[in-house]
Amino acid sequence: MLLQVIYLVAITAEAASGAIMGMRRRMDLFGVCVVGTVTALGGGSIRDVLLGHYPLGWVAHPEYLFFTVGAALAAALLVRYMHRVRMAFLLLDALGLVAFAVIGCDVAAAAGAHPAIVVLMGMVTGICGGLLRDILCNQVPLVLRRDLYASVALATGTLYVLLQRYGIGHDQATAVALVAGFLFRMVAIRWSLTLPVFTTRTPPEH
Amino acid sequence: MLLQVIYLVAITAEAASGAIMGMRRRMDLFGVCVVGTVTALGGGSIRDVLLGHYPLGWVAHPEYLFFTVGAALAAALLVRYMHRVRMAFLLLDALGLVAFAVIGCDVAAAAGAHPAIVVLMGMVTGICGGLLRDILCNQVPLVLRRDLYASVALATGTLYVLLQRYGIGHDQATAVALVAGFLFRMVAIRWSLTLPVFTTRTPPEH
Amino acid sequence: MLLQVIYLVAITAEAASGAIMGMRRRMDLFGVCVVGTVTALGGGSIRDVLLGHYPLGWVAHPEYLFFTVGAALAAALLVRYMHRVRMAFLLLDALGLVAFAVIGCDVAAAAGAHPAIVVLMGMVTGICGGLLRDILCNQVPLVLRRDLYASVALATGTLYVLLQRYGIGHDQATAVALVAGFLFRMVAIRWSLTLPVFTTRTPPEH
Repeated sequence: MLLQVIYLVAITAEAASGAIMGMRRRMDLFGVCVVGTVTALGGGSIRDVLLGHYPLGWVAHPEYLFFTVGAALAAALLVRYMHRVRMAFLLLDALGLVAFAVIGCDVAAAAGAHPAIVVLMGMVTGICGGLLRDILCNQVPLVLRRDLYASVALATGTLYVLLQRYGIGHDQATAVALVAGFLFRMVAIRWSLTLPVFTTRTPPEH
Repeated sequence: MLLQVIYLVAITAEAASGAIMGMRRRMDLFGVCVVGTVTALGGGSIRDVLLGHYPLGWVAHPEYLFFTVGAALAAALLVRYMHRVRMAFLLLDALGLVAFAVIGCDVAAAAGAHPAIVVLMGMVTGICGGLLRDILCNQVPLVLRRDLYASVALATGTLYVLLQRYGIGHDQATAVALVAGFLFRMVAIRWSLTLPVFTTRTPPEH
Repeated sequence: MLLQVIYLVAITAEAASGAIMGMRRRMDLFGVCVVGTVTALGGGSIRDVLLGHYPLGWVAHPEYLFFTVGAALAAALLVRYMHRVRMAFLLLDALGLVAFAVIGCDVAAAAGAHPAIVVLMGMVTGICGGLLRDILCNQVPLVLRRDLYASVALATGTLYVLLQRYGIGHDQATAVALVAGFLFRMVAIRWSLTLPVFTTRTPPEH
């Protein structure tokens, strides 16, 4: 099935991007593989733990780990050439984001969750891998600071849920949500769309 | 029921305080809402995941998310006036802490946990939201560094469990524990009570 | 049983080492106890949450918490003498690492996991306590940066699984894996064996 193929491409791309972040933190070979794997599979794992949905995807399908570890190793070897394929990375990352969102919605819907939770779990699947990556790399998660990244996951999930609620079939809804979410992400990157940033001059205690 | 009302007030206050911390880290609108929500609901979520108690509170009651996101947005808009209500915040935060502790004990007791685990889960519920907030904001968790904050949660839970063990009814024990824990927290704030801080001059490897 | 005794020694040693790290971050008495306990019991807890294996070890056996809190308090009191027993610490830590790995494999195997997941869960049990400790202490996890530490856990688990697959009994396989893993760790410490570190000069955007 197409979504499954997109999923494997997505975890491979996410693992490579996580591995590169780990290298910037001077991690060793093992750390690079862990950060890559956590980036790729962490979002789905957090979603499943929050829903009590067992077994986790990679526990049932250990072969996913070969994709993520392989991608991390490849990224470690090829990192000096990576900047030449930066655009390809952004495309694969955007594809991964919307695929994760749609898959996350499916898992939550199959667990009988409320539509608001279905959309939220799509977002959790899309963003929490990168969030864990940034925690391991000891920085404030990028997704909380800038970029229409989480917003794309939320919009993709919302569209996906609404389409199905109004009678569109699962496959068509998947295709429309993937394409629309992907285009939204491309537009956000191209025109550097961001959400407003709030700051405060009055540091409160605790 | 009174405890439920106190709970909703508490998650609203915690979400606003988390949102303000996120703003200080220059997070965008989305990040502020996430940090606020995680601060408010993270403690109960960690407790439920540790106990295997599904579904999580906010998965069963998605309306909680409207409270936390609304509070985070309100805090973002009103932050410049927030220092004027700092005392109100400290009161609501203290109320939230003891309410979380009592609710956490109830959940663990209903799951048949050992009394020591019941008290511990009250503390986990009270402090882990702020702990996750600080991890997302990339700082050593405040609750581990100073303040009788966790101690208040522990004392509240211990009192609550002991009262019930010695035959006091659930409602009376709840009321007594809430009031006593709240007063303890107020005393700790008023006289800046702290636990001793240990330091070491001999940095050990790993 | 011997493995159970080794386990109690291991969580005591890990709790003391975690407590010392917390002291270096100027945590108070409470924080030191939390970091010690999380270091000792966090790896097994993450493993159990990932596997959906309830109740967690320390929830079923709250007495473990007395070991970890006691060890953290003892470390806080005796920290100035700790550097004199640094070698003993390294030995106990190595023993704990391989014991955690073997126990983690047992839990995952009993849950019917794939052999690759069994080995992985041994590693998760061995390293995730220190990983959580470093997140709470706001630093990039040591285990991701250097040292044959995770590799020792992986090797121990792999040997343990292979021995049993080729017909060696559970007790013999345990003994052989513990001794071999311990020696591997000692060799890695003695000759400062490390994995290659990758770095990149081309910082990619997310």
